[in-house]
Amino acid sequence: MLESSAARVIILTLDLAGTAVFAISGAAVGVKHRLDIFGVCVLGFIAASAGGMIRDVVIGAVPPAALSDWRYATVSIVAAVVTFWRHPRIERLRLPVLVFDAAGLGLFAVAGTQKALAFGLGPFASAALGMITGIGGGVVRDVLVREIPTVLRSDLYALAALAGSSVVVGGELLGWPPAATAPAGAVLCFAVRLLAIRGRWSLPTAGDAGEE
Amino acid sequence: MLESSAARVIILTLDLAGTAVFAISGAAVGVKHRLDIFGVCVLGFIAASAGGMIRDVVIGAVPPAALSDWRYATVSIVAAVVTFWRHPRIERLRLPVLVFDAAGLGLFAVAGTQKALAFGLGPFASAALGMITGIGGGVVRDVLVREIPTVLRSDLYALAALAGSSVVVGGELLGWPPAATAPAGAVLCFAVRLLAIRGRWSLPTAGDAGEE
Amino acid sequence: MLESSAARVIILTLDLAGTAVFAISGAAVGVKHRLDIFGVCVLGFIAASAGGMIRDVVIGAVPPAALSDWRYATVSIVAAVVTFWRHPRIERLRLPVLVFDAAGLGLFAVAGTQKALAFGLGPFASAALGMITGIGGGVVRDVLVREIPTVLRSDLYALAALAGSSVVVGGELLGWPPAATAPAGAVLCFAVRLLAIRGRWSLPTAGDAGEE
Repeated sequence: MLESSAARVIILTLDLAGTAVFAISGAAVGVKHRLDIFGVCVLGFIAASAGGMIRDVVIGAVPPAALSDWRYATVSIVAAVVTFWRHPRIERLRLPVLVFDAAGLGLFAVAGTQKALAFGLGPFASAALGMITGIGGGVVRDVLVREIPTVLRSDLYALAALAGSSVVVGGELLGWPPAATAPAGAVLCFAVRLLAIRGRWSLPTAGDAGEE
Repeated sequence: MLESSAARVIILTLDLAGTAVFAISGAAVGVKHRLDIFGVCVLGFIAASAGGMIRDVVIGAVPPAALSDWRYATVSIVAAVVTFWRHPRIERLRLPVLVFDAAGLGLFAVAGTQKALAFGLGPFASAALGMITGIGGGVVRDVLVREIPTVLRSDLYALAALAGSSVVVGGELLGWPPAATAPAGAVLCFAVRLLAIRGRWSLPTAGDAGEE
Repeated sequence: MLESSAARVIILTLDLAGTAVFAISGAAVGVKHRLDIFGVCVLGFIAASAGGMIRDVVIGAVPPAALSDWRYATVSIVAAVVTFWRHPRIERLRLPVLVFDAAGLGLFAVAGTQKALAFGLGPFASAALGMITGIGGGVVRDVLVREIPTVLRSDLYALAALAGSSVVVGGELLGWPPAATAPAGAVLCFAVRLLAIRGRWSLPTAGDAGEE
């Protein structure tokens, strides 16, 4: 089962790494919207922890790890402060935000799936919760600064998260070791997302013809 | 008590029917905002499941049915895909969205009240949770596409949901069979909402005189 | 421990007082946005209860007090209706909203911290939950009317809440009586917030030089 010590270390490591990159992503959005230093830290923390908190509340793992474990808040505040001070120019932040966001998406989708499986949830719910863990923080982040969440627009955002979490669920069903499927899922999600951004891949919208 | 087999069937049926109509409502809003096919499905699923997930988390029924039972996601994704492909013209969607939304409101308000009562909550909390189940999905849907939620504007939206859930709670207090009060509550909510839309009923706003 | 009868009375009193002032704050925002009477009540109730409901769900205290105890809804609806009828002119509401909001912030930050401690959470999580209790209702209120939440902008909003909750946590660690630290924390939060508004205190934003 996944409740072994190795699984716990994998979950913690993925969670903390995802926390750092999502906090950078949230802080960069905060800097772009000219929030003050505390607002940038709050948005960094929210972007990093909202997805995981939704997951933890939904699977009954309360209080959520993001609150009961001081390391999550520490990591996201450090990441947010560094982002606040080191951003060279605001307009240059678009690409790094997208890349960090893609990395966090992959890490969180995989970590969320792992944790849901470890709590005994079924394959469908675990894959869905992995996706929610991945996209939740970004959705809340975007809502708070009044942007329509990236996940609802193009570029295969949620689909990439779902691909990553599905790899973990599939591996679990096939009895493959999580130490192999977790990195594979995270890399798949990251790659799909980056290729989608680079290639401007997009899914169809209704009535494309009439747009311009 | 409501924990009988009949009550469970009633709750499941109302939940799935409400899921379908709310998913259509969410997908139609997504089409209107020109989201891609995956965004339309996500918005459909969120509109269909957010209210029930809030209810389930609040009453401690975790993991929420919308995630642990694959039928909810399947129903909402099918409904969203059908909506995506079959909308004839985007501008014609206003009225169907309102009507499906009213139907979903009634079904969810009643189903949410039933489930809260079945989990042993009191009359006030059950009526409130019924209303929240009904309005929660629409609120999250509207927030995600940056509209002020319908529930906060006129047309007796939340009041209709509260009327429907109050019928179920009142019937429970009087010992009437849920098989009678549940449809009655749903129809009452649906009728109030449609009449309010049709008759342009509205509640007073502060300082109406100064508006024009 | 904090589970004594006195602590329960303190928590209830702070909760109800905070509920009233946050409901006034939420209702005033609703009036400003020209919502109808029911929308004003809903926004008042949400502003008053969302922070506490997030806290209760996160610490596993379900169903949340705001739903299981009718006094919270009664207090917030009465406060919202009074606000609806007694606002003299809409444009005069800016200052009262800020002051009531500051009072609610202090009361909720302290009450939330107390309750988290009473449920056995650690110092860091309790302080964080106190802050979330304080800022949660205002964040949801602002998101619903499409404003970027006050907490993310300047004026030390979340920092004031954190100062108040830290006083309670510090007192708990030092073994001081909650009957002394709770009022002290609330007053500190209120004072910091009012002084910040009055003195236009603000924290630095990134790239201040380029703003003009």
